[in-house]
Amino acid sequence: MTGGTDMFEPFDPYADRLREECGVFGVLGHEDASALTALGLHALQHRGQEAAGIVTLDKDQFRAERHLGLVGDHFSNADTISRLPGMAAVGHVRYSTTGEPALRNVQPLFAELSGGGFAICHNGNFTNALTLRKQLIEDGAICQSTSDSEVVLQLVARSREKKIVDRFIDAIRQMEGAYALVALTNKKLIGARDPLGIRPLVLGDLNGAPILASETCALDIIGATFIREIENGEVIVCTPSGIESFFPFGRKPARPCIFEYIYFARPDSIVGGRSVYDVRREMGRQLARESHVDSDVIVPVPDSGVPAAIGYSQESGVPFELGIIRNHYVGRTFIEPTQQIRTLGVKLKHSANKAIIQGKRVTLIDDSLVRGTTSVKIVQMIRDAGATEVHFRLASPPIRFSDYYGIDTPVREKLLAAKYSLEEMRTYIGADSLAFVSVDGIYKAMGYEGRDNANPQFTDHCFTGDYPTPLTDLSEDQELARTPRLVEVR
Amino acid sequence: MTGGTDMFEPFDPYADRLREECGVFGVLGHEDASALTALGLHALQHRGQEAAGIVTLDKDQFRAERHLGLVGDHFSNADTISRLPGMAAVGHVRYSTTGEPALRNVQPLFAELSGGGFAICHNGNFTNALTLRKQLIEDGAICQSTSDSEVVLQLVARSREKKIVDRFIDAIRQMEGAYALVALTNKKLIGARDPLGIRPLVLGDLNGAPILASETCALDIIGATFIREIENGEVIVCTPSGIESFFPFGRKPARPCIFEYIYFARPDSIVGGRSVYDVRREMGRQLARESHVDSDVIVPVPDSGVPAAIGYSQESGVPFELGIIRNHYVGRTFIEPTQQIRTLGVKLKHSANKAIIQGKRVTLIDDSLVRGTTSVKIVQMIRDAGATEVHFRLASPPIRFSDYYGIDTPVREKLLAAKYSLEEMRTYIGADSLAFVSVDGIYKAMGYEGRDNANPQFTDHCFTGDYPTPLTDLSEDQELARTPRLVEVR
Amino acid sequence: MTGGTDMFEPFDPYADRLREECGVFGVLGHEDASALTALGLHALQHRGQEAAGIVTLDKDQFRAERHLGLVGDHFSNADTISRLPGMAAVGHVRYSTTGEPALRNVQPLFAELSGGGFAICHNGNFTNALTLRKQLIEDGAICQSTSDSEVVLQLVARSREKKIVDRFIDAIRQMEGAYALVALTNKKLIGARDPLGIRPLVLGDLNGAPILASETCALDIIGATFIREIENGEVIVCTPSGIESFFPFGRKPARPCIFEYIYFARPDSIVGGRSVYDVRREMGRQLARESHVDSDVIVPVPDSGVPAAIGYSQESGVPFELGIIRNHYVGRTFIEPTQQIRTLGVKLKHSANKAIIQGKRVTLIDDSLVRGTTSVKIVQMIRDAGATEVHFRLASPPIRFSDYYGIDTPVREKLLAAKYSLEEMRTYIGADSLAFVSVDGIYKAMGYEGRDNANPQFTDHCFTGDYPTPLTDLSEDQELARTPRLVEVR
Amino acid sequence: MTGGTDMFEPFDPYADRLREECGVFGVLGHEDASALTALGLHALQHRGQEAAGIVTLDKDQFRAERHLGLVGDHFSNADTISRLPGMAAVGHVRYSTTGEPALRNVQPLFAELSGGGFAICHNGNFTNALTLRKQLIEDGAICQSTSDSEVVLQLVARSREKKIVDRFIDAIRQMEGAYALVALTNKKLIGARDPLGIRPLVLGDLNGAPILASETCALDIIGATFIREIENGEVIVCTPSGIESFFPFGRKPARPCIFEYIYFARPDSIVGGRSVYDVRREMGRQLARESHVDSDVIVPVPDSGVPAAIGYSQESGVPFELGIIRNHYVGRTFIEPTQQIRTLGVKLKHSANKAIIQGKRVTLIDDSLVRGTTSVKIVQMIRDAGATEVHFRLASPPIRFSDYYGIDTPVREKLLAAKYSLEEMRTYIGADSLAFVSVDGIYKAMGYEGRDNANPQFTDHCFTGDYPTPLTDLSEDQELARTPRLVEVR
Repeated sequence: MTGGTDMFEPFDPYADRLREECGVFGVLGHEDASALTALGLHALQHRGQEAAGIVTLDKDQFRAERHLGLVGDHFSNADTISRLPGMAAVGHVRYSTTGEPALRNVQPLFAELSGGGFAICHNGNFTNALTLRKQLIEDGAICQSTSDSEVVLQLVARSREKKIVDRFIDAIRQMEGAYALVALTNKKLIGARDPLGIRPLVLGDLNGAPILASETCALDIIGATFIREIENGEVIVCTPSGIESFFPFGRKPARPCIFEYIYFARPDSIVGGRSVYDVRREMGRQLARESHVDSDVIVPVPDSGVPAAIGYSQESGVPFELGIIRNHYVGRTFIEPTQQIRTLGVKLKHSANKAIIQGKRVTLIDDSLVRGTTSVKIVQMIRDAGATEVHFRLASPPIRFSDYYGIDTPVREKLLAAKYSLEEMRTYIGADSLAFVSVDGIYKAMGYEGRDNANPQFTDHCFTGDYPTPLTDLSEDQELARTPRLVEVR
Repeated sequence: MTGGTDMFEPFDPYADRLREECGVFGVLGHEDASALTALGLHALQHRGQEAAGIVTLDKDQFRAERHLGLVGDHFSNADTISRLPGMAAVGHVRYSTTGEPALRNVQPLFAELSGGGFAICHNGNFTNALTLRKQLIEDGAICQSTSDSEVVLQLVARSREKKIVDRFIDAIRQMEGAYALVALTNKKLIGARDPLGIRPLVLGDLNGAPILASETCALDIIGATFIREIENGEVIVCTPSGIESFFPFGRKPARPCIFEYIYFARPDSIVGGRSVYDVRREMGRQLARESHVDSDVIVPVPDSGVPAAIGYSQESGVPFELGIIRNHYVGRTFIEPTQQIRTLGVKLKHSANKAIIQGKRVTLIDDSLVRGTTSVKIVQMIRDAGATEVHFRLASPPIRFSDYYGIDTPVREKLLAAKYSLEEMRTYIGADSLAFVSVDGIYKAMGYEGRDNANPQFTDHCFTGDYPTPLTDLSEDQELARTPRLVEVR
Repeated sequence: MTGGTDMFEPFDPYADRLREECGVFGVLGHEDASALTALGLHALQHRGQEAAGIVTLDKDQFRAERHLGLVGDHFSNADTISRLPGMAAVGHVRYSTTGEPALRNVQPLFAELSGGGFAICHNGNFTNALTLRKQLIEDGAICQSTSDSEVVLQLVARSREKKIVDRFIDAIRQMEGAYALVALTNKKLIGARDPLGIRPLVLGDLNGAPILASETCALDIIGATFIREIENGEVIVCTPSGIESFFPFGRKPARPCIFEYIYFARPDSIVGGRSVYDVRREMGRQLARESHVDSDVIVPVPDSGVPAAIGYSQESGVPFELGIIRNHYVGRTFIEPTQQIRTLGVKLKHSANKAIIQGKRVTLIDDSLVRGTTSVKIVQMIRDAGATEVHFRLASPPIRFSDYYGIDTPVREKLLAAKYSLEEMRTYIGADSLAFVSVDGIYKAMGYEGRDNANPQFTDHCFTGDYPTPLTDLSEDQELARTPRLVEVR
Repeated sequence: MTGGTDMFEPFDPYADRLREECGVFGVLGHEDASALTALGLHALQHRGQEAAGIVTLDKDQFRAERHLGLVGDHFSNADTISRLPGMAAVGHVRYSTTGEPALRNVQPLFAELSGGGFAICHNGNFTNALTLRKQLIEDGAICQSTSDSEVVLQLVARSREKKIVDRFIDAIRQMEGAYALVALTNKKLIGARDPLGIRPLVLGDLNGAPILASETCALDIIGATFIREIENGEVIVCTPSGIESFFPFGRKPARPCIFEYIYFARPDSIVGGRSVYDVRREMGRQLARESHVDSDVIVPVPDSGVPAAIGYSQESGVPFELGIIRNHYVGRTFIEPTQQIRTLGVKLKHSANKAIIQGKRVTLIDDSLVRGTTSVKIVQMIRDAGATEVHFRLASPPIRFSDYYGIDTPVREKLLAAKYSLEEMRTYIGADSLAFVSVDGIYKAMGYEGRDNANPQFTDHCFTGDYPTPLTDLSEDQELARTPRLVEVR
């Protein structure tokens, strides 16, 4: 139950984070469509750093450019932008959950339909994609990617509807799960959000050109005006002559993913009308209210723990200090020291600020606890720097259940809070005390009295086990995953 | 009618060559399947230098690796080979005719079918692919490549037959044109040649493992035994328990492409029972018999004119000499000199061997004449080196018609022999005399009395206009080509 | 006097920073010498991101590896480390001031002397290097680099002394300016600090192996113990049998560079016995004491303004908030938008956190003001986000003079504080108020009563014009710089 | 004494060739100086494929670009040429003998002298360079490269002469060995050939601009006129106002290296007034006269054996045929098959043309025999293809002694002819008969009665052991080579 054996194994102190799968962006009717998309994706880079792609439409010609790597590394110069002319564009940043970062899975996905081209970008996860894929293959479809997102493209291609919007709606009616979709046809920019609005999507405007993006920070970077959020279950269709909305699933209460506030969205984004930074600081305050323990200094785990730590410090009156210093020059590859070096307990990405720690009672603030492997090391590092006490505080409740809606969580057996009691976790982490915000606490930080258990305001199954949609693929025969597939070695 | 305006434009003296589209290779039941395939493709590299790919099958797992560039640059080291384990493999080298060398078009193509994986490699061209592709898209298929070869894959996927061999035969029954196909399923290695046997395919054996390859030189490099040619219209199915043959189109006389002898096949390959080197030398002899003119020296245009020049020299008794020296270190990029330099008439790839040329009457021997742009320059170079007379002799007849079966010929308007009379060509080229082998002459060089016009022994439409199959796509509405397609910028 | 014309020109908001030239590291007698050096350089990466190099000694064999780019990109894997075997190593990270980032200038520099090899690393700048270089060339020396550091290597090579330490001391006696040097001979690791100790150098110990490094953070990353600072004017010689010290310039009071505290050193380093983080926070407190103005929120300019902002907030009681959000995924290349995009005022590297800014009176805290080009934009961004007042506070005095000791400052005419009065600067920056810490204030923050003008405790000429050494090259004929030199295009 | 153990070891059939070290080029007074130099180096690429470099002079500014790799890969585009402006340039292609292909050794070498810049290129080898280098280092010189060529640069830098031409002559007076040098100063283009004229150097003219080059083929590619060879022992100095000659060693008979004719020079070059192609064909004729044996076909080992095989065929009347086909697509990397594959005896670079070989008595013609490792395999390959007899004929005498003048020969113990008698060699090679041209035979092929043993017309020590200069470094203490040097890992 101690972290001992793990101590020298994973070297990335940020390895034990949740990861979002994607960010999406689209623009219609602007002569700098590809440059705007590149900038929007750059602002959404925190949602996926594995790959990025842009498809533009220039008159009737679609053009695609997709790369593994960061937006700034591949879409940053005038040459690239000039290879992507056109008045409309959609783009995508991606983090893959499955470990196959092949180029074929980099979005936007594209199909040449009988009526014209169709490009699509997806953030989220379809919970019945494997089931549908199996059926599609039996019907003679050829799936070129291994991504769940391709299924919606295949369904659009096979729809017997005439109009492209109807084909799109026909397709998403068959899909279950979480999605924010942005699609581009020969004439239209289409956006859609799943019936519960689990994944985010906003509408903006730049001098009359409509913009769709995962977060408002992508509007800010290009100076676009925020118009509104796409509603849950809404299909929005932008054409040069205006914007239309469809609600193919009827109107239901929304239930957006609470993790956008806790971890994924950028602090300067506005999600559901709330400043993400404000919510996080408020969660820190709530944490102080619920579980304060006397200490000399409040130290955030950088960088995601900072807003909560500021809130905790403000509520508790204990000073906020940078007790952990981050090394900004990590680059893309990590040093893999020899075995001898490894046992030195090297800290490549951050180090303790001894002057702040030594002889002090330290309260560490982090945003969430997943497997706990990093937390073990951080607590040890703080102790090694001379702290007399180390109290660990989490600005979110214990994560006890896996996600299936586009967040890369470990299997349940690896979730520390799914295996251990609070006291066992404290022992594992090696802290003098350990506390999480309560589930009601996070709802309070969001401005509610607490969780409405009858009609929960947010998708929060990771804390509660209350999954908001069927998990069809999970309940199907596990053979699904074993369909023989091609491994693209390169 | 002079070559003047072209003089400083195309810098590649080998630019005016015909180009083959592809070479294919497959092996079943050998533990070094991927290494053998890499070697076989290396031996077939002359059939396509743009891209190469290999798919292997290791138990039930298919693995693919595809690259733009030469086989030796990407499949040459132990690492790559170890990433491609398995007892079966198929591979492809490619030269694209359409100018879109995107990775998505690099073969083998692959589909995950309901019954298992299916990889396919194609040499040749389907003359009704655009027509079928249009129909497939209307039926909801998504074509990920822009290659004609994908159509056969889509048809296999959609076939209602149960068994994979039946599905494959179902698919090729719908295809018109020229093809040598090599496919790999979970259990079988399949080969097929079009009903006329236009494109070549041979069967070999390496310690019991069957090998399929475009040419015998791919057998020689791995020490495999040549068994026989796949017959025209034959579908050959290799399994661990043996080899089966099918003739879905019945039995008809073969009519292989004569250009394999004239230009494409490697001189050390045996095609249709004939040594390619022997045939080329014999064409040189025939050329001497038909159109000899007195001269001091026989000079081949390197390297493809060498065997014919040897034959011409042997028949005429005029000495064979290397009057043009090739620079072997051209590398992949060509020097693009400044405008000033360009007017110097730089010869980057070859140079005249003045000691052999000066003061001599020179007979130049080349294998074929396409647009004539290179020939203009070579004749000029020989004159500049001091030749008193320059006689140009071609070891093939005038090319007057485009190919649609996998050879990259220019549009008809660019073919010199389609535009000009013999005398006009001579004037354009700048030679003192010009002669081609006659059509009957090449049949004589092949051991016949001459061309059997009722039942021509070879596919020779480039010389005669006698196309052996329907050209459906050509006769269809030209809208076909205008289907909106994605350009993969990168 | 407004920042208007600059508005859309420099896109890097961090462009207007001072830059240190180098970090140095050395180790003797450890079997992981090269891995330790790579890690040490990684910890010193903030001192130079342009290039990095390591020289190791394995028995009698020196080996070098030098690269443009980050340590983590080139020295991070087991392969590289295994190419650099040996029990001793020296390394260097570099930022070049002159704009020629050629590989020939990447250190360690190396010479094969008659007695053996000699590798040297330099942080600082020699103020008489051009003068000496001219003389060396007249005497027949061939300088392969264009770096001032090579001069000391040439002087060691030409010294008539017998022993290598005497040759080294002979060489540095001829040098003026600022330097921390780390050198490696066949048997010895040598360190040296200039007579005033302007540039920093510390001694550490790892299981008996002596370590030399620019900062203590390079000791922390490898778990080495901090022993002491190298003293000003000290030459320290480490051999397997022990450590010796020499004071070739006698003993004088030290006068270290105050900018190590203000900007260069990492916050977790201990410099001159003081925590850099503590000093910066104290400067923020001093700033609040000297020039507090009422406001609603204290916002640091990330990341270097954070410690001072925390101190300012603690002293003033005004809450500290992250009002500017940094984008961590900038990568190495920057997006160069089209002209149209550029006028949108894109913020690629950071953005305003509107929720914190809107309707607030904001006090911005930064560490220093150089040319002011970035500050103009930051103030504008904060105003655009809805601040009602913007007060700009700097945790260092006005920079009025250029540096010649290894800090990349612009020419004097570009320094805002050298051109303008305080009120003119305020107008230029566009702030409602502007204030700097006083010169005495920073001495107070360091624990003194104030600056001892008779014997200043620190090198602070950038604020005071009080240069501590002769500036020989500056006073020499300006012909020096015009010596014809080779430009290494690549 | 059989080739057995070597059979599967070296995979490059061209590995067993002699290699020249370098080619040099220079031009003065032409606005396309760098483009001309790139083209000239491209024509000289056969003299060195490891690296290439160009230094230009634009007014007073020297610029350098040096690369590992082929000229066509690095100096082929307008961008590179535009980075190298100026009216004068010198360039170098290199093959290194020592296996350290570090960038620091890529020429032109450059020094900033007190009077201005000085760039130098060297083809050949100094036989006292190590001795002089040791002395230079004792005198305080820093040698940045490990090349023998740097010594002459150091001597120029240290010369006490005033004028640059005098300094250059002062330097070469101290050098022993073989050299063709091309140097560029602020105003002059200088060429020099060693006292015996061992290495070649020619003078050309392009519209008034003087050109220096290793071979005439470099003049041909740019359309320059051949003026004359630089004489043995001549120093030629080109300035805008004319050309001057110096003979610092007085006038002696020349003794050029005979291997330029046998192997190194391009067949279309004119060396010493003779066509290289003619000489090689004549050597083939002489070979037929001396050692003809009845056979059915003459087969050259491609490509260097072709001219001699043509001559042999013409003299003997036995037909010349391409019995070995070369694969032109080898690329830069070679396939490294697995152990299983290796034992198949794979032929990656050439293959037997069975149709020509089978059932025939074959006479193989090659230009020279070094270690014999390749010849063993070629004979075996020809036998495997069905030859009934294999006769091996070499168009040069047995190589019994190593070279020290710039040709990369193996140590003497590896030279087959130094170890074995003719019959032993035949047995090792596995041929039915083996013969070499006699030493007098090659002199006859050059137009002489035979070798003038009193005053040999050529440098021919590889055949005769008659070294024409002292070999100082060889006779010095072998400690020379052991000077501790830096290994540039990268």
